[in-house]
Amino acid sequence: MAARNVEERLERYAELAVRVGANVADGQLVFVRGADVTHAPLARAIARAAYRAGARYVDVSYFDQHARRAMIESAADDVLEWSPPWVVERYRAMKDERAALLSTTGDPEPELLQDLDGERVGRARPKEAIEIQMTAFREGANNWSGLAYPTEGWARQVFGEPDVERLWEAVAFCTRLDEPDPPAAWNDHMSRLERRAAALNARDLDAVRFRGPGTDLTIGLLDRSRFAAARFDTAWGRSYVPNMPTEEVFTTPDARRTEGTVRSTQPLALAGQIVRGLELRFEGGRIVDVRAEAGADLVRGQLESDDTAHYLGELALVDGGSRVGQTGLTYFDTLYDENATCHIAYGFGVPQGVEGEPGGDGYNLSTVHTDFMVGGPEVEVDGLTRDGSAVPLLREDVWQLPE
Amino acid sequence: MAARNVEERLERYAELAVRVGANVADGQLVFVRGADVTHAPLARAIARAAYRAGARYVDVSYFDQHARRAMIESAADDVLEWSPPWVVERYRAMKDERAALLSTTGDPEPELLQDLDGERVGRARPKEAIEIQMTAFREGANNWSGLAYPTEGWARQVFGEPDVERLWEAVAFCTRLDEPDPPAAWNDHMSRLERRAAALNARDLDAVRFRGPGTDLTIGLLDRSRFAAARFDTAWGRSYVPNMPTEEVFTTPDARRTEGTVRSTQPLALAGQIVRGLELRFEGGRIVDVRAEAGADLVRGQLESDDTAHYLGELALVDGGSRVGQTGLTYFDTLYDENATCHIAYGFGVPQGVEGEPGGDGYNLSTVHTDFMVGGPEVEVDGLTRDGSAVPLLREDVWQLPE
Repeated sequence: MAARNVEERLERYAELAVRVGANVADGQLVFVRGADVTHAPLARAIARAAYRAGARYVDVSYFDQHARRAMIESAADDVLEWSPPWVVERYRAMKDERAALLSTTGDPEPELLQDLDGERVGRARPKEAIEIQMTAFREGANNWSGLAYPTEGWARQVFGEPDVERLWEAVAFCTRLDEPDPPAAWNDHMSRLERRAAALNARDLDAVRFRGPGTDLTIGLLDRSRFAAARFDTAWGRSYVPNMPTEEVFTTPDARRTEGTVRSTQPLALAGQIVRGLELRFEGGRIVDVRAEAGADLVRGQLESDDTAHYLGELALVDGGSRVGQTGLTYFDTLYDENATCHIAYGFGVPQGVEGEPGGDGYNLSTVHTDFMVGGPEVEVDGLTRDGSAVPLLREDVWQLPE
Repeated sequence: MAARNVEERLERYAELAVRVGANVADGQLVFVRGADVTHAPLARAIARAAYRAGARYVDVSYFDQHARRAMIESAADDVLEWSPPWVVERYRAMKDERAALLSTTGDPEPELLQDLDGERVGRARPKEAIEIQMTAFREGANNWSGLAYPTEGWARQVFGEPDVERLWEAVAFCTRLDEPDPPAAWNDHMSRLERRAAALNARDLDAVRFRGPGTDLTIGLLDRSRFAAARFDTAWGRSYVPNMPTEEVFTTPDARRTEGTVRSTQPLALAGQIVRGLELRFEGGRIVDVRAEAGADLVRGQLESDDTAHYLGELALVDGGSRVGQTGLTYFDTLYDENATCHIAYGFGVPQGVEGEPGGDGYNLSTVHTDFMVGGPEVEVDGLTRDGSAVPLLREDVWQLPE
């Protein structure tokens, strides 16, 4: 691709993230965050686009997994979960100033911490800062969005070779950047997913059941659980799309009512390790057994983070019509992999997945939220109604309800 | 150079910065800061070396000149000097926690902001945060050091081609990394510069005069001005070397007693622009006229930052024996260029350049400190004693006092 076109594509992509994703408001404070240093071209393009959208100030910060690695290897045990006061102040400003947040993903080295003690990797995160972020999410303080940046490192992880252009093509397809009018395409797409969510809500389901190889899992719902698509509104009335791409309809289950076993159907890139072959067993909502071919200690470390990390907070349905799924790739990036197929998350419940305020009995207020993939052509998904009958939702990745 | 040797050289370089430069103390908080994203390999090596030296926690942050560019281009006027509260908190923690600070230099794009309004470029800095930093310097809170990282971008600026290996050779020579025992070589080198400073102090000079093409400048000294080499102690007794390389003996002049004109002898890379052909005229200590072939507006913008930016705060002498000078290169990096030849700085006085506490009459407490080069073979430097006689200090870059 000619350099000029590469540049122009990047600017259009950043523009989409700012206008449709976070939907940055005039005069708003904007944080571009979580960027690997290799994401600098996208982070900068987002900063420019945010100012064009009227941002008052754009803060660009980078996340360095190598520095985190050095910390996990060497720092004292109590430092692992420490939140430096300047980091706390930053998270507080994001929340109190109702900032727009844009995160970039696409880890060039998702296995960088694979050889480290998984339990320490799982615990190593600034807990007080994350609690502030979770409060901000619960209160609907921020319009935010995440999007990935194709780099050589990430392409090597996906394809085994640094074919950045091929990865860009997949990203452009999945984020509808390949459409003549991407914002209009996004609006159509979100409306379609919202109709799907409405159809599910009309069934007034009491639970959802997954059945497949290694999986027989029933996830109970709250009376006030509601299916939704990932187009949200802040508490102050700003619409935004938190994930680009997004292909899911999701809900927030009753954290107390998950029973059975589940086998993950895709590897999970998590905090610098890749978890493979994850198998969880639930009793009374709680994860009581964790197994994996790789990364089990990391998951166990995360689950020990707080009282309710062991319980679910999200259940999401994705069918074979997903653009991400259609690419047939494993991205080792949750933003992509979770939108290729059905997934569930242990930890924090998604506020937009319930009617009314988040919190209360059965709503999970953990500081962890880890999605992992449980769907695929071999996994049957049924809704269970209050009278005990089963409504087929997915068979061989095909959506079963009328659209 | 073989990959293993490149890796090993980087680790030795980081080790030198941590052990001899900042001299990180056991249990200390460490900030690696100011790094361009292309400096990531060095920033990470420093983080590892700091933990090996016993650091409690290492914070690695990157500075993005492209994001600053977008801000200068687009943000409202009052945002230019704004200090975000989370940045203020970070600077406060550095000061209050008596942290070790390590900064990386070597700008891959020192002319990135050349086309922007120089006055805005000069003003664009977080003033409240910098005031905290200046207080920390005055109080001797931190052990700190700066060092450069050879990258393709920086090499292209220096050589016109991205010859990183050639730049590494210059850097290794200038920082004595090429010595069999670099810490011992540094100790010898600093002791030699300290003897030179002592010899100057024994002369009890009242002023220093520079004479050369476009230059006839007399800089008055305070009674308590003292020449020193750049090996400092914190208020809590930790020795450190703030610049790697360093070749200077310097003092803090009487801000009220500079008279005459000076023409810079090297281009000055400053805040994203390159200032060329800088000429300043002083009256009663104050800069009353600023001219330059390029970048005059940037200097003027800086000088408007506060009440005393217009006055000098440092005078430093470097002879032709300087390893940096011997390389014969222009680095477009002040850490290097100021150690190739004599330089002076407008703004903040260096605390270590006076006997007793910094502050008081004639001591400059500005929030700016900008060094620029005024020495060279054509510039004669004399010390003027209280009885009015002249002591030759430099002729054709050769040091004139017995050593």
